[in-house]
Amino acid sequence: MKPIFRRVAVIGKYQRPAAPPAVEGSREVIDCIARFVIEQGCELALEAETAAHLELSDYPVLDLDDVGRQCDLCLVVGGDGTMLGVGRRLAAYGTPLVGINQGRLGFITDVPLDSYQDALLPILHGEYEEDVRPLMHGCVLRGGECVFEALALNDVVVNRGSTSGMVELRIEVDGVFVANQRADGLIVASPTGSTAYALSAGGPMLHPSIPGWVLVPIAPHTLSNRPIVLSDESEVAIEVVAGRDISANFDMQSLASLQHGDRILVRRSAHRVCFLHPRGWSYFATLRKKLRWNEGGS
Amino acid sequence: MKPIFRRVAVIGKYQRPAAPPAVEGSREVIDCIARFVIEQGCELALEAETAAHLELSDYPVLDLDDVGRQCDLCLVVGGDGTMLGVGRRLAAYGTPLVGINQGRLGFITDVPLDSYQDALLPILHGEYEEDVRPLMHGCVLRGGECVFEALALNDVVVNRGSTSGMVELRIEVDGVFVANQRADGLIVASPTGSTAYALSAGGPMLHPSIPGWVLVPIAPHTLSNRPIVLSDESEVAIEVVAGRDISANFDMQSLASLQHGDRILVRRSAHRVCFLHPRGWSYFATLRKKLRWNEGGS
Amino acid sequence: MKPIFRRVAVIGKYQRPAAPPAVEGSREVIDCIARFVIEQGCELALEAETAAHLELSDYPVLDLDDVGRQCDLCLVVGGDGTMLGVGRRLAAYGTPLVGINQGRLGFITDVPLDSYQDALLPILHGEYEEDVRPLMHGCVLRGGECVFEALALNDVVVNRGSTSGMVELRIEVDGVFVANQRADGLIVASPTGSTAYALSAGGPMLHPSIPGWVLVPIAPHTLSNRPIVLSDESEVAIEVVAGRDISANFDMQSLASLQHGDRILVRRSAHRVCFLHPRGWSYFATLRKKLRWNEGGS
Amino acid sequence: MKPIFRRVAVIGKYQRPAAPPAVEGSREVIDCIARFVIEQGCELALEAETAAHLELSDYPVLDLDDVGRQCDLCLVVGGDGTMLGVGRRLAAYGTPLVGINQGRLGFITDVPLDSYQDALLPILHGEYEEDVRPLMHGCVLRGGECVFEALALNDVVVNRGSTSGMVELRIEVDGVFVANQRADGLIVASPTGSTAYALSAGGPMLHPSIPGWVLVPIAPHTLSNRPIVLSDESEVAIEVVAGRDISANFDMQSLASLQHGDRILVRRSAHRVCFLHPRGWSYFATLRKKLRWNEGGS
Repeated sequence: MKPIFRRVAVIGKYQRPAAPPAVEGSREVIDCIARFVIEQGCELALEAETAAHLELSDYPVLDLDDVGRQCDLCLVVGGDGTMLGVGRRLAAYGTPLVGINQGRLGFITDVPLDSYQDALLPILHGEYEEDVRPLMHGCVLRGGECVFEALALNDVVVNRGSTSGMVELRIEVDGVFVANQRADGLIVASPTGSTAYALSAGGPMLHPSIPGWVLVPIAPHTLSNRPIVLSDESEVAIEVVAGRDISANFDMQSLASLQHGDRILVRRSAHRVCFLHPRGWSYFATLRKKLRWNEGGS
Repeated sequence: MKPIFRRVAVIGKYQRPAAPPAVEGSREVIDCIARFVIEQGCELALEAETAAHLELSDYPVLDLDDVGRQCDLCLVVGGDGTMLGVGRRLAAYGTPLVGINQGRLGFITDVPLDSYQDALLPILHGEYEEDVRPLMHGCVLRGGECVFEALALNDVVVNRGSTSGMVELRIEVDGVFVANQRADGLIVASPTGSTAYALSAGGPMLHPSIPGWVLVPIAPHTLSNRPIVLSDESEVAIEVVAGRDISANFDMQSLASLQHGDRILVRRSAHRVCFLHPRGWSYFATLRKKLRWNEGGS
Repeated sequence: MKPIFRRVAVIGKYQRPAAPPAVEGSREVIDCIARFVIEQGCELALEAETAAHLELSDYPVLDLDDVGRQCDLCLVVGGDGTMLGVGRRLAAYGTPLVGINQGRLGFITDVPLDSYQDALLPILHGEYEEDVRPLMHGCVLRGGECVFEALALNDVVVNRGSTSGMVELRIEVDGVFVANQRADGLIVASPTGSTAYALSAGGPMLHPSIPGWVLVPIAPHTLSNRPIVLSDESEVAIEVVAGRDISANFDMQSLASLQHGDRILVRRSAHRVCFLHPRGWSYFATLRKKLRWNEGGS
Repeated sequence: MKPIFRRVAVIGKYQRPAAPPAVEGSREVIDCIARFVIEQGCELALEAETAAHLELSDYPVLDLDDVGRQCDLCLVVGGDGTMLGVGRRLAAYGTPLVGINQGRLGFITDVPLDSYQDALLPILHGEYEEDVRPLMHGCVLRGGECVFEALALNDVVVNRGSTSGMVELRIEVDGVFVANQRADGLIVASPTGSTAYALSAGGPMLHPSIPGWVLVPIAPHTLSNRPIVLSDESEVAIEVVAGRDISANFDMQSLASLQHGDRILVRRSAHRVCFLHPRGWSYFATLRKKLRWNEGGS
C-alpha cells in the first residue's frame, strides 16, 4: 500500500532572526530519516538550508516556500521552537507537520528520534491524529501606518526593558475600551502559547479547541488585573501609553523601541497550522508529562 | 409607540433551597415598578410568591413556570444571586431577564433602582443589549444511576468538608483521562461563573462569548495543576477517588455526602439564559467597575 | 567511642485522633533498627504502642511521655505526618528526633530506610545538623473561655464546610485590627507548614530561620487579600464573624462547629521541636528535590 | 514647651539618576511648611537643591549630607519614591523622616498636605510612632571585583531586556546552592519593598518586624519556583548564568549590561531608615487603605 503523502520534505533547522544559524538534527539523523522516507515510497525533498548546512547533496532540495508549495507533508527534526518557526513559515500553504524530537519531548513535537520509524510508518499511511492550531496575525501601527507585521503561533508580547519601570498599556477589544494596565508587560497567547510564557506569568491553559486568546498581564500593578480569555474573532488593540524601552514580540520576532501612541493589533490569521501526531496522541497526556502531574511529588 | 414586550412579569424574590425565604424589593418598590410597567402599555403579572410575601393583591399573579410560559420579559428586583436563581428556573422558557438592583450593582444586574424608569423605557421599546449566557447541566452518577441533577449558571463545585483532608478527584473529558488531582476541591465554571468563586480560587475571566468552561482546582497539592479552559461541547466527568465529607454544589444547590466512585458529569445545557442590558452596556465596563481597575489604587 | 546519646527510643507509629491506628514500620524494620541501636552501645526503649502493635516483646518499653522524660534521642519510622505528631507530643521534653522514611523522603524525614545505618552512625556520635522548628499554640475562645487547645507544627486552619458559602473572619494582630476577610478559610502556617497546605493555597515558603507565621487566605473574595508574613512574637486572633459549618484545625486536630463570635488565638509556644539530620543536610536541597526544581521540566 | 527636634530640614524633591529633575512641592507649599516649622521654635534648613529649584532664598540652606549631619528631623514633601530616595541618602546619618504627601497617601508617606499642621505639631513634640526599616546593601561582582554598589530600601531586581528570552540565574544563600531559575528575573525585596513590585510579581507581604527578605521570581519557567522568605542575616548571591541584555536594579538605580558570571550580592546594610508617623498610625490600616480591603468590592 502506498503512503497517502506523495511528496515529503525533511527540515532540520530553522533560522531565527538575529541568532546564529543553528542546525538541529545531525547529518546522520537527517540522512537516515530521508532514506526511510524514500524506502516507504514517497518522493523526498530536503529543505535547502538544511541540506546546505549539513552538506547533504544526495537528495533533491527545495527552499522553504517551495516545500510549502510542492510537498504534502513536512518532517521537522528539532524542538518546539523549530516547529513553531517552520509552522509560521508554511502556514500559508497548509502543509501538515510532524515533529521529531532528539531530546526531551515537547508540547507539539512528540515523535522520539530513537523510534521514529515505528511512529512515522502509520502516519505516512494515514493513521494519525490531526491537531490544528490557530495563528495570530500581529501588526504595529504607528501614525496609522503598519510598521511591522508578523505571524505568531504562541504569543504576542509587549514588554518593558531591563532598567525601565512599568509600561502603561491601553487595551481595546473590537474598539471597546477594556482597561489601562500598568505592568511589566502584556501577553496575548493562543491556546498553543498558553502552555508557554503565558503559563509562567500566571495564565490558564487553553485547550486547542478553544477559539480564544488569553490576555495575561506580567506583574500587574493592580492585583485585580487578572488573565482574561477573549474570543479569537475579536481584534485586540494594545496602545503604548507610557514607559520607556518597550518592545513588541511576535513569538520571538521583535520590534524594539516602540513609541508612545504605537498600537499593536492582534487578530486571528486566515491561516492555521496543522500538526500530525501518532494515533492515540492525547493533549492531556502531553500536559501530564510536561507538567509532571500525577508523579507523586509536591 | 407600543412596547415590544406585551406581557411583563416582576419578581422580587427567589427562594433558595434550605434558606429562609427572603424577599428582596420592598412592597413600595415592587408596586412602583408594576405601575410603571402598566403605564407603558404592557400587561403586568406579579410572580406569585413575590405577591404573597409582599401582600400585593392588586395585580394579576402567575407562578414562576407560568411566568416563563406566558410572559415576554421578566424584571428581577434583587442582586446577582436572585438573577441566577430566576435565570435557572426560566431557562427552559427562554424568557429574557432585566436585573434591577437596590444596592451595589452586580456583574449581571445593572439597572439601578433609583433611575430604573430611564433605563427601562428604552428597553421596553427594543433598545437594549442582549447578553446570552450558557447554562451547565450537572448530574451525579452513583452506580450508573443519576442521583442528583441540576442546572448551574455559575459553577459546579466538588469540595471537601471543614475537618477532612484533601479530596482526590479523577478528571476525564469526553472519556479521555485528564488528571488525578488532590486538592480542597475543583470548580467547573462557566464564563458567568468565572468572575465569581473561580476568580477567588485563581481562575481567569472568560468573556461570555467564549464557548468554554474553566476548571479551577482549589488549593491543589501539585503546583502545576493550573486552571484549564475546555470547550463547552465536551463532557467533563469528575470521579470521587478519595476523601471524606465531600459534596457537589451546582450554583448553591448541594448534594452532600458523596461516596467514592460517584461521578459528577457536567455538560452544556440545551437552554441558555438571556439578560437584557441598557444600550451602551459593556462587559468590560462592568469588569472595570466591579474589579476596581483604573482607580489608581494598588 | 561511645555515642553521645545514651538512651534512644524507637517509635513506629503515631495515632491520629479519629483515624484507625496505623502502624508504620514493619516488625522486621523496627526490630532491625532496635538491634542496631543496641549494638552501637545505646540503651534502647521501644515506644509502648509501637511494641504492642508489632508484638515486639524483647525490648524495654516506655510510653510516649516517658520517652520524652527519659530518652536523649528518638528515632521515628514513618513519614512527615508521623514526625509532626511525635514532635508535638515530645515538644515539652525537648527530645530531638530523627526521621527514618520507608517511602518517598519528606520535608523533614530524610533518612532512607535502606541505608539508615550509614546515616545513623555519625548522628549517634554527634555528627548531625540541628534543625529547630517553632511550635504554634492555638486555642479557641468561646465567651471568653478556652474550649479547645492544641499545639501545631504546621498550621492552624479555620475553614468552611463542604456545602456552605464563604466564611467571614475578622483578623487582629496583638489587638490591632488587620482585616475582615471573606474566603473559604484562613491558614496560619509556621515555616514548617509553609511548604504544606499553605503552599497549595498560594503562600510563600518561609525558611526555618524566619521567626514568623504566614497568614494565607484560601480563595479570598477580595483579590488583594494576599498572604502576609507576621512576627511569631505577635498573637494572631481570628474571630468567626459569619458563615456556617466552620471548623478550626490544628495540624490535623479539629474542633468542628465553631460559633459566631468564637475567637481562635495563635501564638508561639514556649516549646520547640528539634530534628536532627545527617551532616551535609540542606534545607534548600530538600526543597529542590521535593518541588522538582532544576529537573528540566516545565 | 519646646519641640524635641531642634534642627528640622525640609526637602521638596529628589533627583533620580537619569531622570529630569522633578520638583515636588510647590514654592508656596515648601515656604508654608518652612514658616510653620520656625513658628514652632525649631531651627529650619532647606535642602539646597530644593531651595535652588524653587528659588527660595529666605532660609538657611544645607546640602543633603549636611542635612544628615546637622538636622534632627527631615520633612519630605513628595510621594513614596521621594521618601525612598531621601531615606537611602540619609541612612548613614540616622536622621528620622516624616513624609508629607500632596496627592494620594503612600505606604510610607502619610501626612496629608492639607492638614499637615495638625499632624506635625504632636510629632515635633515627641508624639509619634517610630517605624524603622532595614536597608539592603547590594553590589555587583565581576571577576571578583565590585563594579557597582548601592543601597536599596525596596528591592534588588535582576531582570532581562525587552526583546530577549529568559535569564538563567543561580541563587546561593550564605554560599549554599538554592536553585537555578529561568525566569524574566528575580526580585529580592525587603519588608518595605514587599508591597511594591514584589507584590505585583506574586510575592507575599512582609510585616516590617520580619527580619527577612523575600525572593520572588518573575514569571518563572518552573511553576514550583515560588516566593521564599529568607533571613536578612543571610547573604544572597545571584549569579548570571545565561541570557542577554540583563540588568541589576537597586530600587531604581541600575547597572545594565550584566555579563555571564557576574554575581549580585545582597546583604543587610548596617544602616536603617527611620520613618515617623502620627500617633495611632497602623501598618495594617495603611494596607487596608492602599489595597482597598473591606470596601465591599470584588
